[in-house]
Amino acid sequence: MNSNKLFTLCNEEKVLRDPIHGYIHIHYQIIYDLINVPSFQRLRRIKQLGASYIVYTTAIHDRLSHSLGVYEIARRLCEENQSIRNALSEEEKIYVQIAALLHDIGHGPLSHVFEQISNISHEVMTNRIITEDKDIQAVFNAYDPELTTIIPSIINHRYQKKCVWQLVSSQLDADRMDYLLRDAYFTGTKYGEFDLERILRTIRVVNNEMVVKHSGIYAVEDYLMARFHMYYQVYYHINIRIFEKMFLAFCDRLVTLAKQNQQTELYNHFHELIHTDSIDRALYEYYDDSTLTEIFKTVINHSDDEILKDLASRLLNRRLFKEIPYSREKDALYNQLLLDNGYNPDYYLLKDIQTLSSNRPYVSTGKQKINILCTDGTIQEFTQVSSIMKSISTASLENETYLFIPREILK
Amino acid sequence: MNSNKLFTLCNEEKVLRDPIHGYIHIHYQIIYDLINVPSFQRLRRIKQLGASYIVYTTAIHDRLSHSLGVYEIARRLCEENQSIRNALSEEEKIYVQIAALLHDIGHGPLSHVFEQISNISHEVMTNRIITEDKDIQAVFNAYDPELTTIIPSIINHRYQKKCVWQLVSSQLDADRMDYLLRDAYFTGTKYGEFDLERILRTIRVVNNEMVVKHSGIYAVEDYLMARFHMYYQVYYHINIRIFEKMFLAFCDRLVTLAKQNQQTELYNHFHELIHTDSIDRALYEYYDDSTLTEIFKTVINHSDDEILKDLASRLLNRRLFKEIPYSREKDALYNQLLLDNGYNPDYYLLKDIQTLSSNRPYVSTGKQKINILCTDGTIQEFTQVSSIMKSISTASLENETYLFIPREILK
Amino acid sequence: MNSNKLFTLCNEEKVLRDPIHGYIHIHYQIIYDLINVPSFQRLRRIKQLGASYIVYTTAIHDRLSHSLGVYEIARRLCEENQSIRNALSEEEKIYVQIAALLHDIGHGPLSHVFEQISNISHEVMTNRIITEDKDIQAVFNAYDPELTTIIPSIINHRYQKKCVWQLVSSQLDADRMDYLLRDAYFTGTKYGEFDLERILRTIRVVNNEMVVKHSGIYAVEDYLMARFHMYYQVYYHINIRIFEKMFLAFCDRLVTLAKQNQQTELYNHFHELIHTDSIDRALYEYYDDSTLTEIFKTVINHSDDEILKDLASRLLNRRLFKEIPYSREKDALYNQLLLDNGYNPDYYLLKDIQTLSSNRPYVSTGKQKINILCTDGTIQEFTQVSSIMKSISTASLENETYLFIPREILK
Amino acid sequence: MNSNKLFTLCNEEKVLRDPIHGYIHIHYQIIYDLINVPSFQRLRRIKQLGASYIVYTTAIHDRLSHSLGVYEIARRLCEENQSIRNALSEEEKIYVQIAALLHDIGHGPLSHVFEQISNISHEVMTNRIITEDKDIQAVFNAYDPELTTIIPSIINHRYQKKCVWQLVSSQLDADRMDYLLRDAYFTGTKYGEFDLERILRTIRVVNNEMVVKHSGIYAVEDYLMARFHMYYQVYYHINIRIFEKMFLAFCDRLVTLAKQNQQTELYNHFHELIHTDSIDRALYEYYDDSTLTEIFKTVINHSDDEILKDLASRLLNRRLFKEIPYSREKDALYNQLLLDNGYNPDYYLLKDIQTLSSNRPYVSTGKQKINILCTDGTIQEFTQVSSIMKSISTASLENETYLFIPREILK
Repeated sequence: MNSNKLFTLCNEEKVLRDPIHGYIHIHYQIIYDLINVPSFQRLRRIKQLGASYIVYTTAIHDRLSHSLGVYEIARRLCEENQSIRNALSEEEKIYVQIAALLHDIGHGPLSHVFEQISNISHEVMTNRIITEDKDIQAVFNAYDPELTTIIPSIINHRYQKKCVWQLVSSQLDADRMDYLLRDAYFTGTKYGEFDLERILRTIRVVNNEMVVKHSGIYAVEDYLMARFHMYYQVYYHINIRIFEKMFLAFCDRLVTLAKQNQQTELYNHFHELIHTDSIDRALYEYYDDSTLTEIFKTVINHSDDEILKDLASRLLNRRLFKEIPYSREKDALYNQLLLDNGYNPDYYLLKDIQTLSSNRPYVSTGKQKINILCTDGTIQEFTQVSSIMKSISTASLENETYLFIPREILK
Repeated sequence: MNSNKLFTLCNEEKVLRDPIHGYIHIHYQIIYDLINVPSFQRLRRIKQLGASYIVYTTAIHDRLSHSLGVYEIARRLCEENQSIRNALSEEEKIYVQIAALLHDIGHGPLSHVFEQISNISHEVMTNRIITEDKDIQAVFNAYDPELTTIIPSIINHRYQKKCVWQLVSSQLDADRMDYLLRDAYFTGTKYGEFDLERILRTIRVVNNEMVVKHSGIYAVEDYLMARFHMYYQVYYHINIRIFEKMFLAFCDRLVTLAKQNQQTELYNHFHELIHTDSIDRALYEYYDDSTLTEIFKTVINHSDDEILKDLASRLLNRRLFKEIPYSREKDALYNQLLLDNGYNPDYYLLKDIQTLSSNRPYVSTGKQKINILCTDGTIQEFTQVSSIMKSISTASLENETYLFIPREILK
Repeated sequence: MNSNKLFTLCNEEKVLRDPIHGYIHIHYQIIYDLINVPSFQRLRRIKQLGASYIVYTTAIHDRLSHSLGVYEIARRLCEENQSIRNALSEEEKIYVQIAALLHDIGHGPLSHVFEQISNISHEVMTNRIITEDKDIQAVFNAYDPELTTIIPSIINHRYQKKCVWQLVSSQLDADRMDYLLRDAYFTGTKYGEFDLERILRTIRVVNNEMVVKHSGIYAVEDYLMARFHMYYQVYYHINIRIFEKMFLAFCDRLVTLAKQNQQTELYNHFHELIHTDSIDRALYEYYDDSTLTEIFKTVINHSDDEILKDLASRLLNRRLFKEIPYSREKDALYNQLLLDNGYNPDYYLLKDIQTLSSNRPYVSTGKQKINILCTDGTIQEFTQVSSIMKSISTASLENETYLFIPREILK
Repeated sequence: MNSNKLFTLCNEEKVLRDPIHGYIHIHYQIIYDLINVPSFQRLRRIKQLGASYIVYTTAIHDRLSHSLGVYEIARRLCEENQSIRNALSEEEKIYVQIAALLHDIGHGPLSHVFEQISNISHEVMTNRIITEDKDIQAVFNAYDPELTTIIPSIINHRYQKKCVWQLVSSQLDADRMDYLLRDAYFTGTKYGEFDLERILRTIRVVNNEMVVKHSGIYAVEDYLMARFHMYYQVYYHINIRIFEKMFLAFCDRLVTLAKQNQQTELYNHFHELIHTDSIDRALYEYYDDSTLTEIFKTVINHSDDEILKDLASRLLNRRLFKEIPYSREKDALYNQLLLDNGYNPDYYLLKDIQTLSSNRPYVSTGKQKINILCTDGTIQEFTQVSSIMKSISTASLENETYLFIPREILK
């Protein structure tokens, strides 16, 4: 009976325009209801790429559009790919679409940075929101109460039938396929483009695991190289890292002041949010990109602390520090130079390590590896059939360390 | 001597990625300095299309990107179009680029709606910001103090050499060319696309006025039809108008409460902003899209007024009223129905007139008409050489009136 | 039983890459078999736009790709549009796809020009090839012999259920939708672009006739304006008309010489083809663009007739005549000038009338008019709901007459 | 004085539409004159990708468009890239544009295949045509007679200033940049796309050699991967190789028959063309894609030789052999099977070796290596700064061998 409810269709198919997929097609009422839940609408107010607009001016697309895009790819995989259509039960097809839609619901503003402050990962928050948010619970209860346990199990890779969660989250999944194309579109770069249609057509399910037909390997190579280039050209761009380190310095200053019983009036929420043992979910959901903006503006207009004001002004108005390659000598040199000029090095001499080594385009180990269905019917791990990827996955990549310093000091 | 300063080049040409133009190229230091002024950076926090994301999920691009795009088209016209290059002095080329960059600096959040509340147009605010903002003044003074009077005179069509302001603002200008392409790109529609390159190549200056070579008339027709379709498909979309009317109802409620000495603590700024004889510029510049979002969230969490809370929640979480064609009978009917159900019709029965008649693709009168340079050397107004546009510009278009009502009442 | 055969699927779905549609999907074996028939493969050797490459260098796409594109749109309409899916029987869905695939099979090189020489329309040849070509007959007989009468009845608008042929050929059909997008892509212009997805989604069948939902009218307006602009910018471009008129002069010369028993050895085929009462189908099918090219080259290398050689050389190497607006005085003047310079005006003074009046974007009369399904359920002819199209469809457009003359004479 | 002539501008800038570059801009009269030379116009009739349309239906773009595209990139490099602008003399800028325009003029139909028959490379023919064609000579003599020696020296890498020929032909040159983008566009694949604008902006000339700024390495990696994928997905696609091998078998048969004094009447030209010690240039220039097509059609209709007719029919109507992986056993097995079924294995059992090993995306040796200008001012070979490319350039790639056999034999 619950199943019957789960399959309730919208009165009329709903469509949303989307530059990446043309249209997002919504068939099931539960999908439509989940989109209208406030905690999902909140994703409108979280930029997909955090501070990337600092470098790529137009890259202010939001997590709501991305989540809809992941849903759309998941829907197409479940409906258009014959092999997946056969491998999943009718219920599982809807589970996949729901999990795709909600997989990012726990993201906060500047999410990966925010995780460093709050010491809580967005995956944990996603879980909490899905299982605790009363509006989501109401939707689940209306269609199928078991969704409360099923959806998190897919997002956390605990759902037994492997291909079900692989479609949502693996080294070749709806999430990455959408974000590469979307981030390429909104940054205006070409690096993230690859042949989505070909990949959608060559995915197969064998023994409940996702594999790719041999004829799709060039498309997969292209996709992995796209991902690799997006990492270095966009996601790990030095100026974005500078912004993030400066924001961390701003937070440090805020906490320091709060501990000294200053600024408590102004940043009550923020401090409360990040410095309790168990983060408050409702408060967390309140936070979005506009909250950060208002904090910066309020600090600039009302704070008495010069460091906090200065950092807020630099962050709001895009006056970034400048990077120099790290060396112990330079570290000491600039430390002194900053002190001589009245800057506190705790907030004005920032050190950053770029972990290139952990950002290969593809890693052939672990449970998320990509498998290829060869023409003879055997299944082989991707680097066994792609000499190019074998080479790349074993290339030696060294980390790079930088110091970030106010530009005026370097003149 | 000032001129010399005005021509100061950047150390190295600066470029910004942009999906519409590929790159934004910045040659002159004054342009770079103006981009970094906080009142220009503020445009990052003002959506170009206000509430259009309500319908076109991805249309959250900002006025900063648009302003850079208008600048880029203006720069290309001044540098790449031989006829314009000859018609303008070297100084005027820079004036045009500056005016293009700053022409939207007076926009507030939901700008056209905001104008109805504040009774002050964004053009007036643009003027005030350019002439009063201390950072802009500092830049102008560093390069050429006369810019303070020259730039507003271009934006306000008072600059003597007509083609100078026509490039920035007319029926065929850098502003519209950028926003049509940009809005089409970010909404994911095709309606706004036209042949920019062809238009840029066929513009000529004759007797200091802008004209288009005869070979460009199809491109201009295409551009005007693009504009026309964008108006009806995007800018005047019924759901966007519903959002805007609901926002106006929210503001009305806020003012009513403020007059009754309620809510003053919370909306101090807002009330102060919109209900003084002369709007405070600094306060105005403080306002951006994130301010609105925070106001909605604060009202939802802290206001005692049920109407205000309800409207804020609907606006924040995209629960829109529904339109029905207006008739006097329906107006009376729904007024009673709302009262019976405990709704205050002042805020829940909204009337809207769509003035189709004033939104033709092209109007052949006034000082902004488009002129065509015919192959025999004569200049003719556009509808004289385009039968199609002649037909369209005289078509009879009737206004449409709607009532907007909460969806649950209509069931 | 035949029906069963008609529904035979390919062993595995076949796909062909296509820049317009991403992929062409082939489900039914009969479609695949028809694609492999030599008279269909011959369409590879017929340029879709004839001599347009004279102006748009890259516009050498062929009628085979276009035919596959029309098929793909027809297939999507039959499979993805719920209303059409319900209105057509399973057999009719395949009929539509076959008719879409074969609708252009009768085209010859420079087809519309060729029709003027041969006095036989491509529609007639299409009919003859479908009903006479032995390979096509073999395919039809293998699946359903009645196709021999059904397919031509669809192409010729005689099939009883109107929507069946409207999908293939009407004022809003798979044919035009494909060629506008395809011609825009391969010329590199924007004029032909419109929102295909929206139109595909808003088409409905009511009482066995095709209509468009009211929400699709802007997309239809855009499509009609796209078509209009393509006519003037591409299909009727003056230089293409010049090439065509020069080619007609070349054919005239050839026929004149043949009648004088000259050149018969060389142009045996050509003369035979165009100057018999009933054109020979097999010979017709032999002709393609490469035949024309070889004729030009052979004439240049081996003909004794200077006029024929000169015209062939101009046609092959793109040395076009130049247009001047017609007047009786100029006609006489240039006639004398040509004679004075040793040119025969029969071949070097060509007159051309551009019939703008018959190329409106949309004509509201006749059986092919576009009907709109209004929100109140009524059906209205398109100009009744689109003021813009009403204006355009009644605009007065005047014809223009030109003289085409060798460029060197005009100096 | 000659130099003055060389710099003669067109009366008005000429522009040609092009989907890859928007427009091709022609400033100099000599460029326009060379485009109008018949031996250049002949490139219209040579497909850029030979038989690739067998797999990618729409890939029938011609070498003329490509040559214009290479010219356009060369022109932009010379005019828009400051470093190149400074490094080249004004004359050299024009030399580069001419060499770019003419670099492919020696290509014949199915060029790389044709080279195997004629034993003469297209580079040699390019040289001969540039130095022997009377129309080209006439143009050169009109502007600067030394072009006859200078242009071939650039095309053959003998021009002393290295960067001059590197712009036209190296591992990162105008030729490859155009063909990757163009082939991607006309096949409808994404594999060939890369960030042209970024590469154009980051090229520098140091000590008269071309280098790329460090900030351009991701764009170069992307370009090399694009090239790599195009090789395997398009240029070396198995079905295209099958077509080419079948065409070679057809030529073998033709030559065998000619030696036996058969078919001489029909294939006089062809035999004469390919079986003399020194190929006849005029005859070579006569050959283009339409000649091949006419040969196939003539053979099918008029030849007495069944093998020749059958192969021509398969080639014309796209009925390809099928590949199977090579083994000595299979070779013997199918040889017998073919004999048993009345096929001559000389023409129906074709062996093909795919030399993957020689088609790496980048080779770091030889005079064409790509050099990077590091931020510290040093110049390093590309694999020294790109770990990814270092890995790939040393990956072990094995060759693959196939047998191609008529499909009906394999059933």
